[in-house]
Amino acid sequence: MATVKLLTDAEVNAVPALKEVFDDMRTTKKSDFVNNFWRGLANDPVLLKRTWEGLKAVMTAEGALDPLTRELIYIAVSTANGCSYCIHSHTAAAKARGMTEAQHAELLAVIGLAGQTNHLVNAMQIPVDKEFLV
Amino acid sequence: MATVKLLTDAEVNAVPALKEVFDDMRTTKKSDFVNNFWRGLANDPVLLKRTWEGLKAVMTAEGALDPLTRELIYIAVSTANGCSYCIHSHTAAAKARGMTEAQHAELLAVIGLAGQTNHLVNAMQIPVDKEFLV
Amino acid sequence: MATVKLLTDAEVNAVPALKEVFDDMRTTKKSDFVNNFWRGLANDPVLLKRTWEGLKAVMTAEGALDPLTRELIYIAVSTANGCSYCIHSHTAAAKARGMTEAQHAELLAVIGLAGQTNHLVNAMQIPVDKEFLV
Amino acid sequence: MATVKLLTDAEVNAVPALKEVFDDMRTTKKSDFVNNFWRGLANDPVLLKRTWEGLKAVMTAEGALDPLTRELIYIAVSTANGCSYCIHSHTAAAKARGMTEAQHAELLAVIGLAGQTNHLVNAMQIPVDKEFLV
Amino acid sequence: MATVKLLTDAEVNAVPALKEVFDDMRTTKKSDFVNNFWRGLANDPVLLKRTWEGLKAVMTAEGALDPLTRELIYIAVSTANGCSYCIHSHTAAAKARGMTEAQHAELLAVIGLAGQTNHLVNAMQIPVDKEFLV
Amino acid sequence: MATVKLLTDAEVNAVPALKEVFDDMRTTKKSDFVNNFWRGLANDPVLLKRTWEGLKAVMTAEGALDPLTRELIYIAVSTANGCSYCIHSHTAAAKARGMTEAQHAELLAVIGLAGQTNHLVNAMQIPVDKEFLV
Repeated sequence: MATVKLLTDAEVNAVPALKEVFDDMRTTKKSDFVNNFWRGLANDPVLLKRTWEGLKAVMTAEGALDPLTRELIYIAVSTANGCSYCIHSHTAAAKARGMTEAQHAELLAVIGLAGQTNHLVNAMQIPVDKEFLV
Repeated sequence: MATVKLLTDAEVNAVPALKEVFDDMRTTKKSDFVNNFWRGLANDPVLLKRTWEGLKAVMTAEGALDPLTRELIYIAVSTANGCSYCIHSHTAAAKARGMTEAQHAELLAVIGLAGQTNHLVNAMQIPVDKEFLV
Repeated sequence: MATVKLLTDAEVNAVPALKEVFDDMRTTKKSDFVNNFWRGLANDPVLLKRTWEGLKAVMTAEGALDPLTRELIYIAVSTANGCSYCIHSHTAAAKARGMTEAQHAELLAVIGLAGQTNHLVNAMQIPVDKEFLV
Repeated sequence: MATVKLLTDAEVNAVPALKEVFDDMRTTKKSDFVNNFWRGLANDPVLLKRTWEGLKAVMTAEGALDPLTRELIYIAVSTANGCSYCIHSHTAAAKARGMTEAQHAELLAVIGLAGQTNHLVNAMQIPVDKEFLV
Repeated sequence: MATVKLLTDAEVNAVPALKEVFDDMRTTKKSDFVNNFWRGLANDPVLLKRTWEGLKAVMTAEGALDPLTRELIYIAVSTANGCSYCIHSHTAAAKARGMTEAQHAELLAVIGLAGQTNHLVNAMQIPVDKEFLV
Repeated sequence: MATVKLLTDAEVNAVPALKEVFDDMRTTKKSDFVNNFWRGLANDPVLLKRTWEGLKAVMTAEGALDPLTRELIYIAVSTANGCSYCIHSHTAAAKARGMTEAQHAELLAVIGLAGQTNHLVNAMQIPVDKEFLV
């Protein structure tokens, strides 16, 4: 259960500032489905709008990294942070953007390897090589 | 300063099991430079070999994700884990594999966004939507 | 399910060293409700007593920060650590101490912002300005 | 050393989109000093602007929590995330906003306590009491 | 629910490369039970084999630390990382290897203390004493 | 540099409540050396005393786990939390308590393995087997 209320469509539609964001979300994502994260944020119209605009700019705009790669990076961060909801929602997003089973398996392998070496480096307190500082 | 000794080339070359791994590393990476991480692991020949073989398989073999994408995922995990050495070494690796400034900037934007939403989700304890569990 | 037994009131009351702590907790909190955290710690009377005395001193004594502010700080740490139980229990405690919806929303906004900038700083490995070291 | 270039004032002033943000920062903070974090973000004018506007709104606007409380929350998150730069910069900010030594000491005590109980809860895997889910 | 399929015994047995690992696991552990972690990894025979061989070498081989001590270390890392599944599975493993209730209670006390002091150290940004660098 | 003052012996000795704790520390550890952590905590006599008494009870008292094992657990937590100071100080403590190079190497191997599998489990969101919940 959430620590905040998850707003229903009826509650969102009753507040123009919320409805505007949800409408833009549905248009941008070409889907009527709005997930619980946004329904929780909707308790604060300003935070909702700022968060959505940030996510929209970073994850959906044309850019130097293709949208699937951005989702893989997102999953990697969420995994290291142990955010269960985020892992579920962005794994779903990555699949919707065409992530194959082979790509998913490689993503897992890289995440696991990084988890391992991060811990080894920390335990040994390895100093940064001067070659990496150029 | 490290909590373990960082082995010099002379010390590595004196132990065949270590020299073999360092030689393979230099051949695989097509570079004479071996960074401090491996010099710390070299205190344990078995751990050195297993870690190198894991990294070689995951980061350099042909696969479904291109090598640069794998480096971006690695940086993402290392950033969330706050592993300074790992961020430095893999940002250098990503640049060596052709990461442009624009790609680096987008990587940062996605990492920052994921950090933000991971924290928001945790604070609100958002339950996973059933749509993500299909 | 917990990895330890959660002691019932009957089990607690049968051990004077445990009953004494639970009694003090009920008196201090002015409530008969004792949450699961303490029932798990009750497997070790010494750890229970030390933890309760630490918490009582830090969270309930007169001090330079008002009790609600301390709860907000607690939630912030628990969120960054991804401790679901702690987020639930201390959000409930903050509400019991008068946290308004507007304060909760601002707490979320600050936590999200810090999560974002922590990640950006880590990824860029920003050196500390000398101005912060005075 | 940073993984990105830290832009000087001369470099910032040469790009109108950057200069505009730095000017607003100096006006808002009533100080000529701009710390390294922003000089790193300045490699990406869009990310710089979005991050600054988020921070300005969350940390400096009128709100339900006073500005010092927001800094304490920020330090709490940064500590749990182990972000050294962030701890330094926001401890400086909290002092600038009037944090006393007694308040700083209590902040530390609450952060330490939360760190302890977060770990105890995780190790015991305590289930959330139904009383916290109302 | 997992983000990957959890393979059944029938599915595992149909693929020789998977069956071989599962057979070795059952022989090594002297138990027919194979837990969900391996059923998830089984989507990638190469990752399954590498992970199992790493775990087998580190956790079950003769060594300088007894097997129970290794499980305690494993639980400590998993707790700090907030990995619920890992805490459950390795607490069960530690109990199977003879962990007493008194040892479990002390493990919790050390983990809690480390969590507390880690946070205090981070918040104060204590510099490493030169005495620790010898 | 620390965010708090690190008290010198002269400053400590001038305050009876501080001197008493430092004296007990020196007696308990049978060493005149007091490391920076305690000099930072000394800004708050109450927090200093509570933290020292907790650490003394958990790390030095007779118990079900030998003192070296407790240090290994401490290092494991500190590594996962990325607390550089704590890793340095407790690796030194473990060496002082007789940790051999072979034991250190195995500690690293277990920590690295746990880091890897924690990340794999998180990325796959593996559900806890009912067998672990007995």
